[in-house]
Amino acid sequence: MSEQSSSQAEISETNRLEAFSDGVFAIAITLLVLEIRLPHVEATEGGHLASDLLALWPTYLAYIISFITIGIMWINHHAVFKMIHRTDRTLIFLNALLLMVITFLNFPTVVLSEYLQSPDGNVAAVFYSGTLFIIAILYNVL
Amino acid sequence: MSEQSSSQAEISETNRLEAFSDGVFAIAITLLVLEIRLPHVEATEGGHLASDLLALWPTYLAYIISFITIGIMWINHHAVFKMIHRTDRTLIFLNALLLMVITFLNFPTVVLSEYLQSPDGNVAAVFYSGTLFIIAILYNVL
Amino acid sequence: MSEQSSSQAEISETNRLEAFSDGVFAIAITLLVLEIRLPHVEATEGGHLASDLLALWPTYLAYIISFITIGIMWINHHAVFKMIHRTDRTLIFLNALLLMVITFLNFPTVVLSEYLQSPDGNVAAVFYSGTLFIIAILYNVL
Amino acid sequence: MSEQSSSQAEISETNRLEAFSDGVFAIAITLLVLEIRLPHVEATEGGHLASDLLALWPTYLAYIISFITIGIMWINHHAVFKMIHRTDRTLIFLNALLLMVITFLNFPTVVLSEYLQSPDGNVAAVFYSGTLFIIAILYNVL
Repeated sequence: MSEQSSSQAEISETNRLEAFSDGVFAIAITLLVLEIRLPHVEATEGGHLASDLLALWPTYLAYIISFITIGIMWINHHAVFKMIHRTDRTLIFLNALLLMVITFLNFPTVVLSEYLQSPDGNVAAVFYSGTLFIIAILYNVL
Repeated sequence: MSEQSSSQAEISETNRLEAFSDGVFAIAITLLVLEIRLPHVEATEGGHLASDLLALWPTYLAYIISFITIGIMWINHHAVFKMIHRTDRTLIFLNALLLMVITFLNFPTVVLSEYLQSPDGNVAAVFYSGTLFIIAILYNVL
Repeated sequence: MSEQSSSQAEISETNRLEAFSDGVFAIAITLLVLEIRLPHVEATEGGHLASDLLALWPTYLAYIISFITIGIMWINHHAVFKMIHRTDRTLIFLNALLLMVITFLNFPTVVLSEYLQSPDGNVAAVFYSGTLFIIAILYNVL
Repeated sequence: MSEQSSSQAEISETNRLEAFSDGVFAIAITLLVLEIRLPHVEATEGGHLASDLLALWPTYLAYIISFITIGIMWINHHAVFKMIHRTDRTLIFLNALLLMVITFLNFPTVVLSEYLQSPDGNVAAVFYSGTLFIIAILYNVL
């Protein structure tokens, strides 16, 4: 294979890794909405749906924060990959690790939205920001 | 970088944003089906499955309306992006906001299908159409 | 715009519609697994997990049938689109309708796997094959 | 059609099959997080969230193992497809079979994380590794 084709193939590799990462980002950002649920659907006497929907504000807040966070991470990921034109095992591994923690963010979001107003709110907040912290470290390593 | 390569890069940016948005649309439209559920699965004495399936009509209706809505939004999004050849921070931000509300539409759909026949049906309808209204505003801003 | 660029743009439109459809197919086929669940997870005295897993065979069967069905539909969709080089409103609409019913197939699959061994098994089977029948009709129209 | 266009078309076929497989991989790897759930969310007296989160370690472990497994399978799939430039019915069928089992891996992961510490842990482990074994066989056939 000539020098140029080899370089072409490497760019194609990077593109495919990027497309795969984009797919994972798109799914992770969309799955967040599945965790928004009404607390008690069995009660249907009426008159309290409006207040129920308002009472879900910690869930909306967690949804918005996580959506923005994953969105910003997608833009950053994009910027990082524009500077990378070579795909090696280390990059693939670090990228997979990053995607794993970003996808995992879904779970701390659920925990945060459920426990924000309970006495355990601080534990949930530590769990959530700890996950964000690990993501930040992985970006710096990448 | 020459003028032309820079323009090429910008087109590639827009394409990637478009592909990412397409992914979010595809997932949001597909996740709708996960919310269609049989109300009480523990009862298996037989003879009532047909009526149970028929009684789910508000859920089917909400599914169809939301599917068509997201589908139309995808076509519109498509039309808007055909006119855009430049990707800046504002566009990325507005696009993210739009995707966030479109993905969120999943939740009002569930609420609507659960409460359409209850006394709280009007609250659910206001919640659903309010979300559609915000989407319409965002399209005009974009 | 010259004749050729216009034709190029139309091919690009068709490609984008095809990519979007592919995304919906990929998600619909993957979501099927979310419906496989252990019936009673609270009982952990041990010794019955193996039989529990075996007793889920209608669920596995429904999973395999639906996976193969959606897979075949993807290949067919692929074949249909190879003959289409023009994207108009009717095609977009019929395609959306088709994707809607294919995505919906997820729900009859769940119903079938839950009710196959109950007295309502025939109703579930009719519901499932009715959905397949509608898909077949839509393919002929497309 | 000339020899070269036909070859071009075949490469395009393989690319589309590869893109579809990538989509299924991306979704299967992302869905894993949906299965991480807090055991009893109704208890909110506080003080036990931290220990609850720690007690979920078998779930985290199963998540990490399955994420790495699907990631490795994606890289392998990638390597296999680099050597394939022809798409025939057998390849499509084997590929679909492989994707079906990879997607199915989601379910043994849930079973493993729920039963790892129960007396039925060995059954869950056999179920999980059996699925991995089938995947390995399918790769060799492909």
